Amino acid sequence: MFKINDNYLKLQGSYLFSTIGKKVKAYREANPDKDVISLGIGDVTLPLAPEVIKSLHAAVDEMGEADTFRGYAPDLGYEFLRQAIAENDYKARGADIAIDEIFISDGAKSDSGNIGDIFSVDNRIAVCDPVYPVYVDTNVMAGRAGIYMENEQRFSNVIYMPCTAENDFVPQLPDERPDIIYLCFPNNPTGSAIGREELQKWVDYALNVGAVIIYDAAYEAYITNAAIPHTIYECEGAKKCAIEIRSFSKNAGFTGTRLGFTVVPKELKCGEVMLNSLWARRHGTKFNGAPYIIQRAGMAVYSDEGKKQVREQVAYYMKNASLIRERLIAAGYTVYGGINAPYIWLKTPENSTSWEFFNLLLEKANVVGTPGSGFGPSGEGYFRLTAFGSYENTVAALDKIAQI
Amino acid sequence: MFKINDNYLKLQGSYLFSTIGKKVKAYREANPDKDVISLGIGDVTLPLAPEVIKSLHAAVDEMGEADTFRGYAPDLGYEFLRQAIAENDYKARGADIAIDEIFISDGAKSDSGNIGDIFSVDNRIAVCDPVYPVYVDTNVMAGRAGIYMENEQRFSNVIYMPCTAENDFVPQLPDERPDIIYLCFPNNPTGSAIGREELQKWVDYALNVGAVIIYDAAYEAYITNAAIPHTIYECEGAKKCAIEIRSFSKNAGFTGTRLGFTVVPKELKCGEVMLNSLWARRHGTKFNGAPYIIQRAGMAVYSDEGKKQVREQVAYYMKNASLIRERLIAAGYTVYGGINAPYIWLKTPENSTSWEFFNLLLEKANVVGTPGSGFGPSGEGYFRLTAFGSYENTVAALDKIAQI
Repeated sequence: MFKINDNYLKLQGSYLFSTIGKKVKAYREANPDKDVISLGIGDVTLPLAPEVIKSLHAAVDEMGEADTFRGYAPDLGYEFLRQAIAENDYKARGADIAIDEIFISDGAKSDSGNIGDIFSVDNRIAVCDPVYPVYVDTNVMAGRAGIYMENEQRFSNVIYMPCTAENDFVPQLPDERPDIIYLCFPNNPTGSAIGREELQKWVDYALNVGAVIIYDAAYEAYITNAAIPHTIYECEGAKKCAIEIRSFSKNAGFTGTRLGFTVVPKELKCGEVMLNSLWARRHGTKFNGAPYIIQRAGMAVYSDEGKKQVREQVAYYMKNASLIRERLIAAGYTVYGGINAPYIWLKTPENSTSWEFFNLLLEKANVVGTPGSGFGPSGEGYFRLTAFGSYENTVAALDKIAQI
Repeated sequence: MFKINDNYLKLQGSYLFSTIGKKVKAYREANPDKDVISLGIGDVTLPLAPEVIKSLHAAVDEMGEADTFRGYAPDLGYEFLRQAIAENDYKARGADIAIDEIFISDGAKSDSGNIGDIFSVDNRIAVCDPVYPVYVDTNVMAGRAGIYMENEQRFSNVIYMPCTAENDFVPQLPDERPDIIYLCFPNNPTGSAIGREELQKWVDYALNVGAVIIYDAAYEAYITNAAIPHTIYECEGAKKCAIEIRSFSKNAGFTGTRLGFTVVPKELKCGEVMLNSLWARRHGTKFNGAPYIIQRAGMAVYSDEGKKQVREQVAYYMKNASLIRERLIAAGYTVYGGINAPYIWLKTPENSTSWEFFNLLLEKANVVGTPGSGFGPSGEGYFRLTAFGSYENTVAALDKIAQI
């Protein structure tokens, strides 16, 4: 008789955003007259930039003609896109990343879930707490997380690094020694950022203990402060210890268009084995490339006009972020984030739990946010709002929240 | 110190088509004057059908307007596409598949590689020999294949089911009991098909021994004989033992556009656990949907005009298949397949090995094919040609092969 991967049975509830989606759907069905505004899931709302649209149409036309039709993409992704990434995202920031260290994918979520494939089950992972659920869940699925301890709301074999107001939501180096460290800055969900010197400490630590850092930089486009690094490869030695995951979802609105990439430097080795070769092998065997037309669309993001247009989109969302901060502070909330990130992290009022505040907000203000506890035990008593709504919806949501 | 997944080190060579790609690239660089024709990798050459192109443009326009912009797709894929699949691919064939048993993905290669995630490492897999390399390689990566036995050219824990001229390239029920059985019909690489009664035997066997069948039906559009099932769910009881993987790559030319789907029936259980729930959890956690515009393009394949156009594309390739069969037979080759499948499987002449014939064909005829031994030990002495070239290139390739 076949056997299932029973690590899946250790997962707690369903994927956070699926759960929220179901709750909101149920509320909408029970209250068809209510206008529910979502500042919950980090999904963008602005249409794709005109340059991206132009590029998509041009690529579609190419796919309709025999001379320019494209079949299977090169394993690592089209060179035109990897070249643009190497130049714009790395060389321009003083980081020397070769194009065969860049792997184009269908997004940062897939990559941050799949990257675990190339590591042994016998690694101990460390995550920030609160954390993007995909890092923990995919390690549970792989059998790396141990068992779930109901009382402590945590997995026995995961090192949780609390990120709270006390440490400005930047974790301290852990007491226990991890093998794989997940870091995401600017941070989802807390909206915090990490300074260059602080990040260098992590790189030094990883090199010292022989750990690998999985660095999720999906939100780098939202950085406003020049002291905040856009890539971990701005730090010395990072190419020997860090994998970086990037996305087109938030800087260019590709959440429904799907494009991302992962950098695995060739200097990153376990003994004689290059992790770059392992990821190349996974990429070539269990993935078949992002669509040509989508890779072309990604390329448009790096054109002069495209850069200008996506910067305007980011500015639009950051205007929302400022507004959310200001209005919530005016309403008496304690608020974090929203300066170098599109997320606002607030303390739930009157010691309510995160889910209590979720229900309150949904029922009294018809606004959907994300309960902090869904991101980990240290997220309890916090709540995440995103700046990705339309300006009008954001204003309307804040008006309603102010009336609670 | 972090540890890699050293199962990767058990993999033999690189992914077959990457190896071929590198060999061809080297030959082209050394012989810039030669016109190399590829009938190797199963990549289509016809441009996307006009209805698909029209649909892509319309969807791109939607993505450029705030009112019609789409962010993250629903976890399982857009309902419009799952509905079309349920009706056209299943209901029309007498199979009752619900839309929440259908999971839209970025292609059959990803799905056939990722499906292993939901199964325990402690399952014994059975594969046809020769076989699409992804099934074996991904099980090696997962630690399910055992060790590679150099002399026998096989993995110690995999049950190989020889498919040779003697059994008409349809495997016999194995003597050893497998937990997971991979079947692909119409078959890649041999081009063979399986009759409804024969497939029913496999379903009955799986139900009897408690095995699950991973049924890859990526080539069903090429079936010309009415006695050949298009889906395993035409067989009684299949919903209790089979997962089916499908692709838009070969029926509609989506190799570079990326779209596929997997059916996991809710009746398929291990004890009380529905595999449908496990795959839904994986899909929602480690994947973020196929792009909206690509799902719209897939929808166009099910319109009346779209169906007509993609049928014409299949007919075009099958004309190539007939031509390859006829010309090779006329040239004295022993040839299989090419009747219900776009692959022609030939016996290499004069007892040459598959790679010897690959080199001969590349050097003497400048034609690229795929060595049968790359698909497994029983593929030695065979060679695969595909019908996916242009008619002109196929004729030119055959002219050159005839001159060897």
